[in-house]
This record gives sequence, C-alpha cells and structure tokens, in this order.
Amino acid sequence: MNVLISEVGPRDGLQNCDRIMASSDKMMWIHAARAAGIREIEVGSFVSRTLFPQLADTADLVAESVQIDGLAVAVLVPNVRGAEMALRAGAHKITLPLSVSETHSIRNIGRTHDQVIAEAEAIAGLISSLPAEARPHFEGSLSTAFGCTIEGAIPDAKILSLADRLMQAGCAEVGLSDTTGLGNPASVRRLIRAVRGVIGDDNLTGVHLHNTYGLGLANALAAFDEGITTFDSSLGGLGGCPTSPGASGNIVTEDLVFMFESMGVDTGVDLDLLIRCRDHIEAGLPGEALFGFTPLAGLPRDWPEPANPDVSAQ
Amino acid sequence: MNVLISEVGPRDGLQNCDRIMASSDKMMWIHAARAAGIREIEVGSFVSRTLFPQLADTADLVAESVQIDGLAVAVLVPNVRGAEMALRAGAHKITLPLSVSETHSIRNIGRTHDQVIAEAEAIAGLISSLPAEARPHFEGSLSTAFGCTIEGAIPDAKILSLADRLMQAGCAEVGLSDTTGLGNPASVRRLIRAVRGVIGDDNLTGVHLHNTYGLGLANALAAFDEGITTFDSSLGGLGGCPTSPGASGNIVTEDLVFMFESMGVDTGVDLDLLIRCRDHIEAGLPGEALFGFTPLAGLPRDWPEPANPDVSAQ
Repeated sequence: MNVLISEVGPRDGLQNCDRIMASSDKMMWIHAARAAGIREIEVGSFVSRTLFPQLADTADLVAESVQIDGLAVAVLVPNVRGAEMALRAGAHKITLPLSVSETHSIRNIGRTHDQVIAEAEAIAGLISSLPAEARPHFEGSLSTAFGCTIEGAIPDAKILSLADRLMQAGCAEVGLSDTTGLGNPASVRRLIRAVRGVIGDDNLTGVHLHNTYGLGLANALAAFDEGITTFDSSLGGLGGCPTSPGASGNIVTEDLVFMFESMGVDTGVDLDLLIRCRDHIEAGLPGEALFGFTPLAGLPRDWPEPANPDVSAQ
Repeated sequence: MNVLISEVGPRDGLQNCDRIMASSDKMMWIHAARAAGIREIEVGSFVSRTLFPQLADTADLVAESVQIDGLAVAVLVPNVRGAEMALRAGAHKITLPLSVSETHSIRNIGRTHDQVIAEAEAIAGLISSLPAEARPHFEGSLSTAFGCTIEGAIPDAKILSLADRLMQAGCAEVGLSDTTGLGNPASVRRLIRAVRGVIGDDNLTGVHLHNTYGLGLANALAAFDEGITTFDSSLGGLGGCPTSPGASGNIVTEDLVFMFESMGVDTGVDLDLLIRCRDHIEAGLPGEALFGFTPLAGLPRDWPEPANPDVSAQ
C-alpha cells in the first residue's frame, strides 16, 4: 500500500508569495526534495509572466528538472499556448485547471467552461500528434470543486458533467482540487464517489487539497479511504492563502508524509531529509511564513530509520 | 447524528501555560463557551497547587460553573483526595488519568499502575456511597494510549488489560487519550476497536486528542468513523505542547466544530460565537499563542446562520 506525494510548492506555493524565489534556490529545493524521495514535483506554471513573475522561469526549471533521475516533472498550463511551451520544455505531466465555478474560471483564466474544454481538446490533439514515448500525462483538474468563494457550493451535477467533458476532450485523467479549502471529509468522499461513478475509478486517482480551515489532513484521509493514491501538497504549506492573511494554503507535505508513514502507508519519502528541505525555502525567501506541525514537534524518538528513500523509481 | 464537544482548555490548556489566568477571566470564558453552545467543560484539575498554580482555583470554578444552566462540569483528579474535593465542589464528571506507560504514570502522578487502579477503586467506592442523584460520572482515561515519549509505543495487550481493570475498579467509562499526539488514523481506529472488544462499545465513547504532529482532526475523523461521540478539545489549541516549543497542544475546538458542522454533524455550537470566545483568552493571557485555522480564514460566505445554539440541553 503506497501513495504518491506530488510536491506543488514550487508552483502553487510560490504563486501565492509576493516575492520571487531565485531559480537557483528553486533548483536546490527541487534537488533536495528528490533526494528526500519525492517522485513528482510541479515545478511551475506557464502563465502570464506579467501576472505571475514568480513563475517566469518555468521553462528553464522544467528543462533542468527533467534531467533529475526518477523525477516526474509536472507543470500547470492555462491553455494550449502554455501546453506548447510545456511540451517544448519536456514536461512529463501537464495539468489544465477547469474551475467548476464558471465565475471563478472567467476571473482566474479568462475563459468560460466551453472555452476551457476547447483548450483541453486542442491540448489533447497536440499531445496525440507526438510520438507515443514523448507524450506527457495530461490531467484536467476540477478546481473549486468543493466550493467557491464567489459562487458558493457548485452543484454535483455540474461537476460530474465537466469531469465527463474533460475525459471526452482527451484528458488521461481528472483530478479534484479544493482550491478554497472548503471541502470536508463528507464532501470529499461524496464527490470522489460521484465523479468515479461517471468517469471510472481509474480516471480519478489524485486530489489537490488546501488547509484553509485546518481540515486538509482529515480530507486527505477521507480521500485515501476512498482509494485516492496521489496527493498534492506543498513543503511548509508555502504560499498561505492569498485572500485570507495568516490562513494556510496547500496541505503541508511534511505533516502529510508523517500521517501516511505513521499509518504504515509507504510514501517513499525520508521525512528527516524532507524537513531539511525547508532550509531552502528559508534561504530563498527569508522570513516567509511556513506552516507544519511535524517540523516543530520533531520526529518521534522511535521514528524508524529511513530504509532507502525512493530515489530511483519514476 | 451529533457529537459532544468537551472543552478542556481551562484545564489542559491552562495547565500548559506558564502564566496564571485570573479566575474571573476563566469564568467569562466558561460563560461565553456555554453561550456558544458548549455543553461540557473541564474547568480544572485537583492537583498540587504548588506544581500547578494555574489550576489552584479549581474548587471555586466548579462551584460557580455548576450554577450554569445546561453545563456539565468536568474535572480531572489524580487520586481519591482530588476526587473528594471534586465531590465537595459538586463536579458532574470526574476523570482519573491512568497513563498506560507506567514510567510516565510514575513521573506524572507518582503512582504505579496498581496504585492508580487502587485509587480508582477508592474513588468508585466514594461515589457509590453518595445518593444516586449526587453521583458524578466517573471516567478512567488511558493517557499516552497512542505512544509515550519515554517508553515509545505501549503494547495493545497492556492497554486492553488496563481498560478492563479500570472498568472492574468501578469506572462508568474509559476514554482514550493521545497525550503525546503520536496517534494516527490507523492506530486510533485499531485501538478503539480493540478496547471496545474488551469493555464493550458503550463503555468507550470519548477521545482526547492532541495536535502535536498536525494529525488531530484526521484522528478525530477516524474516531468519529468508529462511532466515538465525545471529543475533547481546547479553544485556540491553548497551551501548546510543553515539551516542544511552537508545537501545538490539544486539537482546536474551533476547527473541530468547523469540521463536524461542515460534514452535517450537529455539535450544538454556534461557531461564530465560539470564535469570539478567543477574546477572553486574549484578554486573560495577553500574547499567549493561539492556534486554529478557521478563526484566521473566517467563516465561509454561505455558512448557515445558527439556528439555535444548544444552550438548554444538559
């Protein structure tokens, strides 16, 4: 029994920091995370450099990161133009967000649902034109799936329809994203079951959870109980919540790994090495608020020595 | 479907604060918590005034709190002498901790397992000598049940035996206490099932969880899934973890209520009024570190108006 921890701090974390981390600091973090056993990292996003100067070096980061043995390099793209850049850089995984709140979709990436689906089709077409061995994994991510701060709760029927349309458009998989942190264990379970009922169990294997209300790990547990195997999280919960000063952002990788390893669920991650990765954030963004309980409490006295952090598996 | 939130901040929270909160501030907090719908509060502990001057006013707090309509007033006692004081003050619920780590038991209350069981028998005898209507609820609490920082993991067999002995000694119920925060959802589930297998489902209905590693709400969810209905927690996670500076203590009442209410599980608590109770801690212990995500994030836009916070039920 094991899970894949997908570190999204270099993308979702840094996107919500005001300051810009130097590319060299990012790469030290990415290397250190891989050395700790992390097997997938979302290194950036091909979005507007003007809006998100924090992520302007994404192409370089991808090109450098794909050289790291055993690391799946993921990026977020808002449209087919971003996907072209991702393909050129050699990303292994491309995630297209589709906000189930259409209001949020329009404000976030300037596109209606129909327009995002059209982008998904174009991206899928682009990918299928590549030789099989060069094709990245293409995921459609249903953001604000557990509630939108503008529209409130989105009806399940709309979410299921959008999940189905993303698969029809050519996504290899659909993810559920709790952008606002409004999900709870009951809604996480319900929505996973409902979406899987439409697109099949194998086509929903990952969740992207936030910790805005402190429910992140409880929601991760609920998702795990439903058979979810890929969990996005951010080292130190980096980035906070841009609309709520002091509130947390992504679930914290350190605590997530602590939870799973304590339960006997293999993450492949050496928690001690992982905690030391915080040094790279502290060096690259001095004074940035970091979250996480495990790093403060310190590893338990009888925490098992790492057998062999998984630094070889893809 | 509903749960009982047992606020333990005035005892477990304040016990771990260096400074002493004035009795009048404590009473304002207790009144405000009741007004927010909290139905049970552990107001203090009959321990050494020299060791815990923070709790020296427990007898007065009990005597005043039992006047509050609909409030179950709980106290912790380390021995029969404490129980005598609790009975004299009129407490509704008495909890005797028995640390399943004997080393911890000796260091914490200076008693071996046999000696604590003997205290339990004496307390039960004392209670049974009272007229039926004057008898408080008597709980034995298995502390360090999910791991001890001195002894490490305690074998299930020892825990089950101690649970059985507490019931035989005359406890009305046994609780599981994650004193160290080392529990995880898997161990929480396993131990609840195992203990219930020995003493019966009805005799284990409550858990006392800490958030040292950030797993508190995930553990609460796991316990809830097993049918646990009483959850200890502390407003603002007050008190932190005395052995780990910066690390969290009890699970945070505000986030716990947010989780359950979001899931549609009735707590009887008005979350908005509950969050305002933090003012009393901030007034009584200025600058004390408070935890909790929900208070920082603020209630969601579409959070339902409180119907009628439960201020009448016992």
